[in-house]
Amino acid sequence: MFDEFKPDSIIHYAEQPSAPFSMKGNEKAVETQVNNIVGTLNVIFAMKRSCPDAHLIKLGTMGEYGTPNIDIEEGWIEIEHKGRKDRVLFPKKPISFYHLSKVHDSNNLEFACRVWGTRVTDLNQGVVYGIETEETKLDIRLSTSFHYDDIFGTALNRFCTQAVAGIPIMPYGKGTQKRAFLNILDTLQCVELSLLNPAEKGEFRVLNQFTESFTINELAERVKCGAKNMGLNASIKHIENPRKEEEEHYFNPVHSKFIDLGLKPNKLSDVLVDSMLKKIIEHKDFINKDVISPRVKWEQK
Amino acid sequence: MFDEFKPDSIIHYAEQPSAPFSMKGNEKAVETQVNNIVGTLNVIFAMKRSCPDAHLIKLGTMGEYGTPNIDIEEGWIEIEHKGRKDRVLFPKKPISFYHLSKVHDSNNLEFACRVWGTRVTDLNQGVVYGIETEETKLDIRLSTSFHYDDIFGTALNRFCTQAVAGIPIMPYGKGTQKRAFLNILDTLQCVELSLLNPAEKGEFRVLNQFTESFTINELAERVKCGAKNMGLNASIKHIENPRKEEEEHYFNPVHSKFIDLGLKPNKLSDVLVDSMLKKIIEHKDFINKDVISPRVKWEQK
Repeated sequence: MFDEFKPDSIIHYAEQPSAPFSMKGNEKAVETQVNNIVGTLNVIFAMKRSCPDAHLIKLGTMGEYGTPNIDIEEGWIEIEHKGRKDRVLFPKKPISFYHLSKVHDSNNLEFACRVWGTRVTDLNQGVVYGIETEETKLDIRLSTSFHYDDIFGTALNRFCTQAVAGIPIMPYGKGTQKRAFLNILDTLQCVELSLLNPAEKGEFRVLNQFTESFTINELAERVKCGAKNMGLNASIKHIENPRKEEEEHYFNPVHSKFIDLGLKPNKLSDVLVDSMLKKIIEHKDFINKDVISPRVKWEQK
Repeated sequence: MFDEFKPDSIIHYAEQPSAPFSMKGNEKAVETQVNNIVGTLNVIFAMKRSCPDAHLIKLGTMGEYGTPNIDIEEGWIEIEHKGRKDRVLFPKKPISFYHLSKVHDSNNLEFACRVWGTRVTDLNQGVVYGIETEETKLDIRLSTSFHYDDIFGTALNRFCTQAVAGIPIMPYGKGTQKRAFLNILDTLQCVELSLLNPAEKGEFRVLNQFTESFTINELAERVKCGAKNMGLNASIKHIENPRKEEEEHYFNPVHSKFIDLGLKPNKLSDVLVDSMLKKIIEHKDFINKDVISPRVKWEQK
């Protein structure tokens, strides 16, 4: 396909995207890592053969970094050690076999850039929220997928769905975990900005793709307030954390490169939360309450 | 098998071990990474299920680190960044898809230790040389494999074979690349010391397993002198480097942990080189000269 089409840019989104899926057990961990690593290897070998000057835009995740006790830079860090200096890949501390698969991808990609001169932009994306874009509004058949279940759903989507379904909003554990977030509109802006401003030949460029950081509790409160204003009887109930992750931690990731490239952030507003709640209310009858509570535990046998 | 045998320790050597094999193309890169990553994932899931307190001894490689401009620590490094500190995995810069597969393993293993409390010792081994041990001398059927070809052969073995075969000793490129080496006798000592001194519950312990560093040119010279003393007509001929690697670089890896555990190094001696040459001379007629020159290039299409 690459030989025929000769792409200038390749946007690679074709990965298993769920941490809980990868933690279901041996088989799903292997499936996640093999699918993601082999897919990316096949893409870079095809590029090398058919379009060695093309630009690969690859979806990574902020979860590759985990929650280190130092500021998170954009992929690389200058370190000084015993009086000598080097610029090295930022050390990673991912919290699932899914997040690890993306770390493995990043390492393979950096090697391809260094040895073959491949051009790569690795988008370390935060948690995406939002339900529609200008394009999806044009026709119902263009709607994005919207996941609220325990396996593929993300925090804000899940909390809004829980509020509409009349069940408590359920942060995992203390809810003091801090994460990076962005609006689906900004995801699209970021991919376009990457396309228009490609990485250099041989450059492994990493961009931290998010606009704001919140604790899980802050998100839960925003949804609770929005729901109450709409007359829904929303409450918050902390449940045992199915994941093994730090709940109280330092979190200060850098994200200046996209701003420098011209990103105009659409920050989380009460209007957005309201519009999500309204959209979910329209489809209230389709909510499957059986897939909301977490079923996958990080430490299960 | 783990369920039935209930091992206290598992020594995991079952990986594709060759950098050039992994660089043959798309198929071999995928085969290497899938074999190595999936094998290790299966081992840690089996341990979690059947023997969660057992100790995994896993063979890594010094090649995971590459040749950074700072001292190489044993797996972990304390860094200070913008006034804050953390202990993080040592940043890696591997030079082949094989070396990358071991980096991926190390990252997966660190996660298992952190989340499941697995005990792991990752042996970042240097290049092994040597042809026999006390045990292999007992019976010819216990002989170790001895590789001198371009795919599985390592530097000293290859140079000795080249000298005996009457072809030039062929360092890749300038030969100023510096690498970590150890005697096959010390490999066995190190594995035994790891067994007798297991990692703690939840500890991802990394041990740099080598005794000396040499440039490739130093090794070539040692073999040339040994061969000449034996009446062989040995010469050195630098050939184009099939690999893409730094040839002039800083290299100062730490390796104190095994000394602290009691390792008594068998350093490279002229006696060892002589004994290798003698053993190869015994089998001179079996040397296949067609598999000596490098056939796999890092940058080939």
